[in-house]
Amino acid sequence: MMNDLRMAVLDANLELVRRGLVHDTWGNASGIDRERGLIAIKPSGIAYEVMKPGDMTIVALDSGEAVEGDYRPSSDTPTHLALYRAFKTIGGVVHTHSLYATAWSQANRDLPALGTTHADQFHGAVPCTRKLRPSEIREDYEQNTGRVIVERFRKLDPMQIPAVLAASHGPFAWGATPAEAVVNADVLEHVARLASETLRIAPRAPSMQKALLDKHFFRKHGPSARYGQNRVKNERSPR
Amino acid sequence: MMNDLRMAVLDANLELVRRGLVHDTWGNASGIDRERGLIAIKPSGIAYEVMKPGDMTIVALDSGEAVEGDYRPSSDTPTHLALYRAFKTIGGVVHTHSLYATAWSQANRDLPALGTTHADQFHGAVPCTRKLRPSEIREDYEQNTGRVIVERFRKLDPMQIPAVLAASHGPFAWGATPAEAVVNADVLEHVARLASETLRIAPRAPSMQKALLDKHFFRKHGPSARYGQNRVKNERSPR
Amino acid sequence: MMNDLRMAVLDANLELVRRGLVHDTWGNASGIDRERGLIAIKPSGIAYEVMKPGDMTIVALDSGEAVEGDYRPSSDTPTHLALYRAFKTIGGVVHTHSLYATAWSQANRDLPALGTTHADQFHGAVPCTRKLRPSEIREDYEQNTGRVIVERFRKLDPMQIPAVLAASHGPFAWGATPAEAVVNADVLEHVARLASETLRIAPRAPSMQKALLDKHFFRKHGPSARYGQNRVKNERSPR
Amino acid sequence: MMNDLRMAVLDANLELVRRGLVHDTWGNASGIDRERGLIAIKPSGIAYEVMKPGDMTIVALDSGEAVEGDYRPSSDTPTHLALYRAFKTIGGVVHTHSLYATAWSQANRDLPALGTTHADQFHGAVPCTRKLRPSEIREDYEQNTGRVIVERFRKLDPMQIPAVLAASHGPFAWGATPAEAVVNADVLEHVARLASETLRIAPRAPSMQKALLDKHFFRKHGPSARYGQNRVKNERSPR
Repeated sequence: MMNDLRMAVLDANLELVRRGLVHDTWGNASGIDRERGLIAIKPSGIAYEVMKPGDMTIVALDSGEAVEGDYRPSSDTPTHLALYRAFKTIGGVVHTHSLYATAWSQANRDLPALGTTHADQFHGAVPCTRKLRPSEIREDYEQNTGRVIVERFRKLDPMQIPAVLAASHGPFAWGATPAEAVVNADVLEHVARLASETLRIAPRAPSMQKALLDKHFFRKHGPSARYGQNRVKNERSPR
Repeated sequence: MMNDLRMAVLDANLELVRRGLVHDTWGNASGIDRERGLIAIKPSGIAYEVMKPGDMTIVALDSGEAVEGDYRPSSDTPTHLALYRAFKTIGGVVHTHSLYATAWSQANRDLPALGTTHADQFHGAVPCTRKLRPSEIREDYEQNTGRVIVERFRKLDPMQIPAVLAASHGPFAWGATPAEAVVNADVLEHVARLASETLRIAPRAPSMQKALLDKHFFRKHGPSARYGQNRVKNERSPR
Repeated sequence: MMNDLRMAVLDANLELVRRGLVHDTWGNASGIDRERGLIAIKPSGIAYEVMKPGDMTIVALDSGEAVEGDYRPSSDTPTHLALYRAFKTIGGVVHTHSLYATAWSQANRDLPALGTTHADQFHGAVPCTRKLRPSEIREDYEQNTGRVIVERFRKLDPMQIPAVLAASHGPFAWGATPAEAVVNADVLEHVARLASETLRIAPRAPSMQKALLDKHFFRKHGPSARYGQNRVKNERSPR
Repeated sequence: MMNDLRMAVLDANLELVRRGLVHDTWGNASGIDRERGLIAIKPSGIAYEVMKPGDMTIVALDSGEAVEGDYRPSSDTPTHLALYRAFKTIGGVVHTHSLYATAWSQANRDLPALGTTHADQFHGAVPCTRKLRPSEIREDYEQNTGRVIVERFRKLDPMQIPAVLAASHGPFAWGATPAEAVVNADVLEHVARLASETLRIAPRAPSMQKALLDKHFFRKHGPSARYGQNRVKNERSPR
């Protein structure tokens, strides 16, 4: 049971490596089976080269308990669970320490929407969370990391802005599937670098116009999307 | 019919990938058969790995209608058409979101000519367009993208400056052939990075001297060019 | 005798190259056999492609004399020896001129702890030594390089901060084994780059909170570590 | 005749590509046979993939005339000749548009000696030439490029600082052989990047101490060098 999800989650973890988003083993991906209320997630501390679908750990969405698998789940599991509980439509979550997105996290800055590359994937700035309070760090740290993300999205639509910067830490991204979460993490890294390079040329470069943001986001996402060959949203974003 | 052009256009699209100018599928190349009044352009949302010459879409220059091919053309097709209509001597157009050229586009700055690397390919600054007005974004967005490029070149020679930065968006480049357009997009990316690195060392570095700009541009381009082995302009710029 | 150590040291030297930490031949790694009081270190000026375990030079910890091997030891040997003598629990030392860590060394700045990527490996800023005095450069230069490192660690625990920036020079890193020293040199390079990118976005970004630094460092290191599958500290840091 | 030199020059040209110092065909290397008064240099506009030793052009040092070979020599030949005439002990010259060294050239700044990586190869700042006057650009441009380099070295030893930055243009490097010139061009690019990264961290970082500059340069170069296995200066710098 859950074999398709295990394979999708394994593939998402390996794709993070292939896309250069993970240095050493610093990343993890998960996926959810909403009907069964179970997630599959990368085990803690297993080398990518030898990881098999059966090594993915199965964790219950409600209790947070590991229910299947030989290995302990990633230590970031409570953060993944918090996101699945709050964002009902997401099917996959990834966490990386990719270079530029992490730099923006360490700078504790929202990543501004400066151009159409950003707008094709994110409908506005990618927000940075507040810093955790010392008490939130000492107890239930990983859950609280999820909690401040959810708090930050109180007025935001997680399907229109499928990523966040955890302050002093690094990015989390999500999507309808684990594979889509990987694409969002990848585009996030790319637009984070692009924003850094833009601000070095023009430190006061303003955010892009709202009309242009809407045009690019909605021609690829939502009911009036008109990209690709059959109005089905592809995982590989067509242009 | 048009098989040679289809193959040249496919090859230009693949060369964009090989040269690292395209992240994911964010780029497109086209070519024109001026006699027939037809262009061949990359289809929207087809993976590079499986793209065949026959997948290129054929579009009529005058009507903008797709006249041959199984797939819808790139959504940027109206911009390509606008350039072919206004710049009568060009034979190929490419659009990318290459990192540094896009950063300059997002900074809404002309890319200054700071040295001979730039002058060997571009006879002056590579201009940035004005921003589109909200009404120009909402209606006929892609055509208007082409329109502001043409507007920006009113006093410029598109064969002497074969590229432009679309504000808040990214670069377009062109040339006598699709292959030459790719080379121009590649050199543009390189000199954009070079300019960024120069201005970090010396933020007020002035543009290069006019005499040096002329010397380098005209020893490679135009009637008195004296590069390579037989005074024929090669696509791979000899030095 | 010492064959295992020679092989571990050779492997550490080659791993520096594989991880891209060494340009040309600018790096060296060593390991120690504490029982015998002998270190194995890369010979000076031998190409990586042809280096064999038997080419490693064996040097006595107390006298600093080469006692085995066909080649003269790395010219940085006296610095390695000074570190082994002062830091009793380390088993491997590496020196590189990796780009970003060297830039921080040339800037004569401590590398601040700006986020969890740093905190997972280093329990605080990675310190920069003072500059050597002219007399310390002219006589016993390499020993004095070791001496100012040891001086800089008077109030620091070398197992909690397993690396240093030698002013105007470059990084040294160490660990329980040569392989662990390589990992620390690699993470140092990564967090040095990350800090540079962070400060370009937010030049006054403050160091991370003490509670977060402690949380991340101690969940991976020390008696209460709870990472990986069996609470054994892996060389490849699990997340 | 001159076959060994042709092969050494071809190899130097290909090594520029292998080391990533050349974008497209923007670079050239030459070597000299002092006894015969002849240089071998890359032909203009021949693709690297098909270049053979016999394609190198032979040019007379005194007259500057091509005396052998099927192809026209690189357009930068007069600059190479000016360097061979003025610097009597050099045996090879290379010119590149490598990214960081070119950025310093475009910034019209001397590249300061900020640390031991620099000092291991260059005994002080790598100087930038003055800009050419318009009249010097219009007539005999390539010769004048050589002339201002020689002018800049009036008080400098070209064997202690085997490279220069041509203002608004890019780097030239030289050495006892074509292969050594390539190494110097490679190290120049590396220390140019390192200096850029250093100054971004500490914009007022001062040059390194004279004592440290001397120590590092002279332990690798000159009569008291004590690197490598037999006090012979290797082309691959041992550490």
